Amino acid sequence: MRYLEDFAPGQVYHFRSAPMSAASIKAFAKEWDPQRLHTDEDYAATIHGSLIASGFQTMLEVFKPVMTEMMVDVANIGGMGFDKLRWLRPVRPNEPLDVDMTVNSVTPSKSKPDRGILHYTLSAKNPKGEIVFSTDTPVMIQRKQNDTD
Amino acid sequence: MRYLEDFAPGQVYHFRSAPMSAASIKAFAKEWDPQRLHTDEDYAATIHGSLIASGFQTMLEVFKPVMTEMMVDVANIGGMGFDKLRWLRPVRPNEPLDVDMTVNSVTPSKSKPDRGILHYTLSAKNPKGEIVFSTDTPVMIQRKQNDTD
Repeated sequence: MRYLEDFAPGQVYHFRSAPMSAASIKAFAKEWDPQRLHTDEDYAATIHGSLIASGFQTMLEVFKPVMTEMMVDVANIGGMGFDKLRWLRPVRPNEPLDVDMTVNSVTPSKSKPDRGILHYTLSAKNPKGEIVFSTDTPVMIQRKQNDTD
Repeated sequence: MRYLEDFAPGQVYHFRSAPMSAASIKAFAKEWDPQRLHTDEDYAATIHGSLIASGFQTMLEVFKPVMTEMMVDVANIGGMGFDKLRWLRPVRPNEPLDVDMTVNSVTPSKSKPDRGILHYTLSAKNPKGEIVFSTDTPVMIQRKQNDTD
């Protein structure tokens, strides 16, 4: 298990997101975000040149390796939210994304000695090397010395 | 179809999100965010008093009525992102949320006369009336006079 003390500013962790097929983009959109940009290939082509993924799906796919490969082993009290989350370019079918997680700061809580806040930036590049997604994320994590497991 | 000109600062739209069952919280977490806070009722109870939903799922459920009931009828070029997205309190099983969408500003683009940016705040309250989720969202929308459909 990793705790607040196991992170330090400047650390960079690399991940890779799974490519989204056109079928997966349409299925996700149908459930959560049924806009024609994500469900209608001809319409999307007139605006963006091709079908594009829902930003919600891009966000989930970019975070998925972080959550499934890293955060399951972190003493995480809870994500606090996102700052400056931006979909900077369209994400098209069958594009895997290279994801960088960069630690910005590690701040022990002044009022609660058992925890602190990890701030990190998550950014994702498409196969052309263009940044398609970025966000700054604060997450509340347990400190090691108070672990009683 | 609604265009940029159909929105004005101060407009408030009300929605209601579907409650998440404990089974749905665990199933979503298993796929996207497999932390014990969302998958293990006993563990989650020691930290938060009960199982709590993944913030990703809360976000999707809060936006779902906005996307499926409103944005499908808006000439939407694309969501730009989220600012100050915050999960302010845990969301527990079987809690429907009252969702308010408040229009903050409507700004025609200076460089591209066919579009502009709608900024809105989305906030969600639990059945106790506590705000559990909030975010400021900019979205790029077509202007009416340039519609050629």
